[in-house]
Amino acid sequence: MTEREAAVLLVELTRGDVVESSHRGALAVVDSQGTLLAAAGDPQHVAYLRSSAKPFQALPTVDAGALDYYGLNEQALALMCASHHGTEEHVLVAQRILDAIGLDVSALRCGVHWPVDEVASRRLAAAGLEPDARHNNCSGKHAGMLTLARFWDLDDLDYTRSDHPVQTAILARLAAMADLAPGAIHVAPDGCTVPAFALPLANAALAFARLIDLAAPADCQRIVAAMQAYPHLVSGHGALDDTLMQAGAGVIVSKGGAEGYQGLGIRTPDGRSVGLALKIEDGNARAKGPVLVAVLEALRLVDAAVLARLEPLRRPAIMNHRRQVVGEMRAVPELGALAGADALHPPAAIEIAA
Amino acid sequence: MTEREAAVLLVELTRGDVVESSHRGALAVVDSQGTLLAAAGDPQHVAYLRSSAKPFQALPTVDAGALDYYGLNEQALALMCASHHGTEEHVLVAQRILDAIGLDVSALRCGVHWPVDEVASRRLAAAGLEPDARHNNCSGKHAGMLTLARFWDLDDLDYTRSDHPVQTAILARLAAMADLAPGAIHVAPDGCTVPAFALPLANAALAFARLIDLAAPADCQRIVAAMQAYPHLVSGHGALDDTLMQAGAGVIVSKGGAEGYQGLGIRTPDGRSVGLALKIEDGNARAKGPVLVAVLEALRLVDAAVLARLEPLRRPAIMNHRRQVVGEMRAVPELGALAGADALHPPAAIEIAA
Repeated sequence: MTEREAAVLLVELTRGDVVESSHRGALAVVDSQGTLLAAAGDPQHVAYLRSSAKPFQALPTVDAGALDYYGLNEQALALMCASHHGTEEHVLVAQRILDAIGLDVSALRCGVHWPVDEVASRRLAAAGLEPDARHNNCSGKHAGMLTLARFWDLDDLDYTRSDHPVQTAILARLAAMADLAPGAIHVAPDGCTVPAFALPLANAALAFARLIDLAAPADCQRIVAAMQAYPHLVSGHGALDDTLMQAGAGVIVSKGGAEGYQGLGIRTPDGRSVGLALKIEDGNARAKGPVLVAVLEALRLVDAAVLARLEPLRRPAIMNHRRQVVGEMRAVPELGALAGADALHPPAAIEIAA
Repeated sequence: MTEREAAVLLVELTRGDVVESSHRGALAVVDSQGTLLAAAGDPQHVAYLRSSAKPFQALPTVDAGALDYYGLNEQALALMCASHHGTEEHVLVAQRILDAIGLDVSALRCGVHWPVDEVASRRLAAAGLEPDARHNNCSGKHAGMLTLARFWDLDDLDYTRSDHPVQTAILARLAAMADLAPGAIHVAPDGCTVPAFALPLANAALAFARLIDLAAPADCQRIVAAMQAYPHLVSGHGALDDTLMQAGAGVIVSKGGAEGYQGLGIRTPDGRSVGLALKIEDGNARAKGPVLVAVLEALRLVDAAVLARLEPLRRPAIMNHRRQVVGEMRAVPELGALAGADALHPPAAIEIAA
């Protein structure tokens, strides 16, 4: 096995007969036993999960029993794991969490941005309104952190500090899921101010494999079920996570992050629990879909029915403003041969970075 | 001179102590005599100029005398060269061109999208309005093409076809500026349906060097002057082209294109006319500013006063939604040593691809 390039060519975009742009990156596919099944680029590449960490950030809240204590339902849990699009429905669920824990919008420390959903943004503007912290795509995660802080009866509700009990609990749990020591994970502020976590792709893939494992702890199973039941609350209607989980119909849990990160947990047709972590080097989310479909197919991680439902992600047409097709986006052929690459790069126990 | 990589690392984005994302690309710097002064990556890389071609697409309209015939002023000319942000001012100028040539918005074949300027979009929505083709960032270019079609008294106003007389005139002029045969330029539909042009970076850089040359034809000089006089009409207040041309104060002409393309013409302190063409491999516009500042400085293409005004582009802070600095974007050190690279890659007449 020769030394791997950190990032390799993954996706090309054409216009007419010329490749106009391309995306590089790295990915790792790991089963719940910690066996590296396949990789493109360096599976030890250290990357921030960004919002792909959200299912893990919700674990301590669920594990503590805070959801049931406050009478919060599975929609609320899905939103705690979400990078939501700020629609009226998302904001309503965020408000319900705040109501349940006896706080208002001023307790959210995620900052404010206009809804990701452009139609929702314009509807807000048309009503003469401005967004507040509930419209921030991370408001559910922040409400979940506040839920745990309230459940623990903490005086200190500045849950964004890395030494806050809520954050140390999250880091410890993520590290355990990823088979790392907490100190081996790089921590820096996320776009919404709470800690973001950088770890090797292979370890992140392991965490996703364990999250979806049938033998996983009850909090993992509850989070996976909530995300799969309400995928549009985890993202927005038609977004990548929504599409993947709808198509997966119970065998995929999917959570994207900023800067081209993607985590997947998959229950394979042959009964394995597998995790995938992908980082697009340049941070562009558009390249994720074609890569994921190519890898799921090449490694036979999903059956033909799931693949058929993912077909729209495989080779999206590039259209102009008059809806004419001018090119396409496609994974490079090497990804389709990823199974063959197993012979080249034989399965190996992943090196624990800790 | 060893064989060059097509694209090399240009820009890194940090978060905490980790490089989170990076951008690769290629660039060529060429003087108006056709001497390749410097390059990063492959200066012969073929890339679509996209909207960076707009100054050249306006040349036949100016050369024909159509502006004066219809009483169109320099604001109108700036908009013909623009990827504008769809503000009220931009739409007003687009409408003035249509009025002058006796057409209405239905003649524009660029398609419709919401204004690039988000505030303008929300203002439109708040007024209960929808955008039309005038809000499309390319509406000025389309109005300019219609201006020439009307001046030539053509019955056929479908100026988007590559065999339309307006388009064949544009291709011929661009090819001449770039020292290429028209047939050597790849043509495919742009996002706004008219032909987009792909050519080697070095040839595109030559075209920009010739555009800003003091001995350039009158139509070139008029276009450069109009873009420099109204840089916010060419883009939007605070956009990259606006910032570069404001900072340049008469020595820079700048036109960005989609998918990470950038063209610059520069009159250097030592009296040369120089062109620069840059393609970010992955198409992300955010990487352009740090690259351009590093190259302008390393090759001493602008004086200290211009560089000082460009300082905000050099190393932009990455901030979260609460306006806290979490990282930075910076050009790789190799770009700062680009002048030294001349010794490695001695100046050479560019190879004409035709």
